[in-house]
Order: sequence, then structure tokens, then C-alpha cells
Amino acid sequence: MQKPLILVTNDDGITAPGLRALIDCMKEIGEVVVVAPDSPQSGKGHAITVDSTLFAKEVVIDPKNGGDLEYSCSGTPADCVKLALRVLLDRRPDLCVSGINHGSNSSISVIYSGTMSAAMEAGIEGIPAIGFSLGDFSWDADFSPALPFVKKIVEQALAHQIPEGTVLNVNIPKGDSPKGIKICRQARGNWKERFDRRTSPSGREYYWLSGEFELLDKGRDTDEWALSQGYVSVVPTQFDLTAYHALKPLNNWNLNGQ
Amino acid sequence: MQKPLILVTNDDGITAPGLRALIDCMKEIGEVVVVAPDSPQSGKGHAITVDSTLFAKEVVIDPKNGGDLEYSCSGTPADCVKLALRVLLDRRPDLCVSGINHGSNSSISVIYSGTMSAAMEAGIEGIPAIGFSLGDFSWDADFSPALPFVKKIVEQALAHQIPEGTVLNVNIPKGDSPKGIKICRQARGNWKERFDRRTSPSGREYYWLSGEFELLDKGRDTDEWALSQGYVSVVPTQFDLTAYHALKPLNNWNLNGQ
Repeated sequence: MQKPLILVTNDDGITAPGLRALIDCMKEIGEVVVVAPDSPQSGKGHAITVDSTLFAKEVVIDPKNGGDLEYSCSGTPADCVKLALRVLLDRRPDLCVSGINHGSNSSISVIYSGTMSAAMEAGIEGIPAIGFSLGDFSWDADFSPALPFVKKIVEQALAHQIPEGTVLNVNIPKGDSPKGIKICRQARGNWKERFDRRTSPSGREYYWLSGEFELLDKGRDTDEWALSQGYVSVVPTQFDLTAYHALKPLNNWNLNGQ
Repeated sequence: MQKPLILVTNDDGITAPGLRALIDCMKEIGEVVVVAPDSPQSGKGHAITVDSTLFAKEVVIDPKNGGDLEYSCSGTPADCVKLALRVLLDRRPDLCVSGINHGSNSSISVIYSGTMSAAMEAGIEGIPAIGFSLGDFSWDADFSPALPFVKKIVEQALAHQIPEGTVLNVNIPKGDSPKGIKICRQARGNWKERFDRRTSPSGREYYWLSGEFELLDKGRDTDEWALSQGYVSVVPTQFDLTAYHALKPLNNWNLNGQ
């Protein structure tokens, strides 16, 4: 039997330790082709390169370990997936995994996440897709406690089917081995930004974005709750953004009368 | 009574005719503050500037018409909204409108849309928000047939309340005056990309992304259907991406056993 073809990508760039750990883990399961950005793309959301050129080249990042084939690409995570599917892969992948991101993509962060946008892009194309993120921003984060959970989720995704129109957003807590895996909904919350105002040497004002996440949800069925309790969270995420509950109230607006 | 404060932004940049038309239209309704990108940001999705500096300055684009106050910003559409809310505005806006985009943002394009990400960013902050797009990419597109519909929708949004957790994605067909306004769901569809492969003068291979939209939905309740029939489409759009229908099947996976 042919091994499953697994497309691996991320948003931290092709040399990121989180990606390298994911590649090694996926090599135990299937044939691995990597198409990942040549530089960090954090916070890129679902950006695509529409008015500029895209470069991609075959690379060997680690001669001892690595994908069966690896490409580095000048574009965003979503570009990487598009280019992989349309140009670089010689057959349709059985799965697309993105990550492991250095930093959490739980709650509202899913909206800003390049990691998840790559997975979403594959999902839109009907390819089973999962984004993985670890709640540790540091470049030398320890991914080893996460890997058995990553492998378990991928094996189950290949054995069952990810429900149609759905992409999995998996977040793994920092630290010791997680207690288990919980299926969750996306917690309500947002980022309370602070803009640090500074002045350049030439007298021009500029800002640095920083801020803190604010949880606005006390539910015990959310990704934030699961993570706070030491569990891996799995949120099924969709790209049909229609707020179906809002169709009826909107139909009561006077949009077509005088 | 104080006039409503309306924050206006877009993704085509602060000089775009679609934005200028929206500003003029909003001036009939409220006090208008513009915070828009200093250059085109199409396809930027929900990108934010996390590892770079952001510049913003007060500008006068058109001395005769324009917002009560206008800022041009070096960031993405989502950055513009964050900076407006946290730094530039002296009170919370009653409404945020984004657009009018030069080009459609119906169906799956909502995912890639900078126009809609700006509106989403305001929605996440609990501010009523609407993205407007015209199905005409050209810089000299005629926005005048769209404006009575834009005004009607904004007036209704201020009179009623946009349902919580919901942002309106409004698309306006190109050409003659639309027949009316329809509340719709997001049509299923995707982009069939083509990558045009070329070689640079120095021999480096590169790609240009292009492609065509493919509609995968025959429903007569979708945005694509409404637009094809000459109606303005209004899709209530949400940023809770949880695929609730998928929670149950996922709970049947063997994620925590041996």
C-alpha cells in the first residue's frame, strides 16, 4: 500500500524547530513533502501574494533528517499551500499539517494565524488539514512532549475522516506532558493592544504593537479552558463564515422599502 | 444629539476612489474619521504587523471633500482599525465601515479579503461593522449606483442592531442600479489558481498567481446567486470559527485511549 502523502508547512519559516519536529514526526506516518516560507510569516492571517512575484526552490535544510522533498517559498503560508497543490506536488496529498507553531493559536488568535490559514487553504481545497501550535513563543521551545499527541491526532484523522468543511485547530499547552486531548469550541476573547509610541532618529513618530489576550468566556468547553487545565485542545474550525443565526433578524430590517 | 462617529477604512489605500465615495456617503450620516492604509493591501487577509514598526500621520487627501479627520497608516487594514481604536480616536466609534472595495469579496473571497478583515477587527471589538465591495476591479469603477444601497444598509444598521458576533459582508454587482438587497449565506466555491512560471533576467524561476473563481453551490440563497440576479448581497459573517456540527463526530475519535 502506498504511504499517505503529507504536505507540511508552517508560518515560522522552513528552518523553525517546530516545523522540523513536525516533519520528523510525520515521517513515521507517511511520505513527507515540505513547502514552507523562506522567512517568518507570523500574524500574516490569510494573506496571499496577488500583486507580486513568488519564488520557490528545492532545498535541503538538514541532510540527516527532513522531508522526502522540501521547498522554500518566498510567499505567505497560504501561498505555500496553493503553490504546492497547483505546481510542486505530483499527486494530491492525503493530509496537510501546519506548524508546529511557536506560540498559541487558540481563541480569537485563529483569525490572525498564518499557521491556521495554511491549513484552511488546504481545507478549502477539500484536503484534510490540521494546524498545530505550542503555547511557547521561544525559538528553543521543547516540542518533545507535544509529539505523541500530534501523532495520535494525525493517525486518527487518517483513520476517520475530518468532517467536511472543517479544519482542526490543535493547541498544545507549554510544559510537561499534556493530560489528554479535548474537543473544544473557540473561546470568546480578544487582544487588548497597546501601541508603544516612539520617535525615529529623524523625528518621525512610529508605533510598536503589543498587548495581552483577554478571555471573555467562562465556559468549560473552550480551548482556553482545556489548555488552562493541561489538555491539548482540538477545535473544529470552518471557512463558511455565515452567521446562520443572524439571517432571520436581518430579514426583519427594512432594506427594500422606502 | 451627537452625530454617530463612523470609522472608515479599506484595503485599496487612502486615495482609492471606492474609499473616497464611501467617505462622501458617510458624511451625510455622521462624523467621519478615516484611518486607511497608505498603499494597496489587497489579499492581505487578516494580517497584522507584529514584528515591524507602524507609521501613521494625519493627512488631507482632498481639501474639498473628505473625512472630518484622516490618517494614513503604513500597516494592514486590521492594523488601521487597531490603531484607530487604541490610539487615534478620542471616543469609541458607533460604526466601522470598510471599502468600497474595488472588486468582489463574495463567497470564499471573504477569507482573503483585507476589506472584510478590517470590518472583522472592529466586530471583534464589539463595534458594529460592515464591509462593502463592488464587483468591479478597475480603479475608475463607477460607484454611484452603489451609494444609495450603501446608505440604506448603514442607516438600517444604526437603527436596528447588527446581531452580536456578526459583521456584514456586503457585495454590490457591477453595472446598472441593483434591483434590491438580499440577505444571503456565503456560497461554496473556491479559486482555481494558475501559476504562470517565468524566468528572471538572472535565470531565477518565479511565479505569478492568477486564476478563476469556481462556484460549487447551486443554492438560490447565496451571495453569488443574488449577485448574478442583479441584487446586492448581505452575508452576516462571524469570527467564531467553531464548526459546531463537527464536535460530535470528533468526540467519537479514539483520541485518549490506546
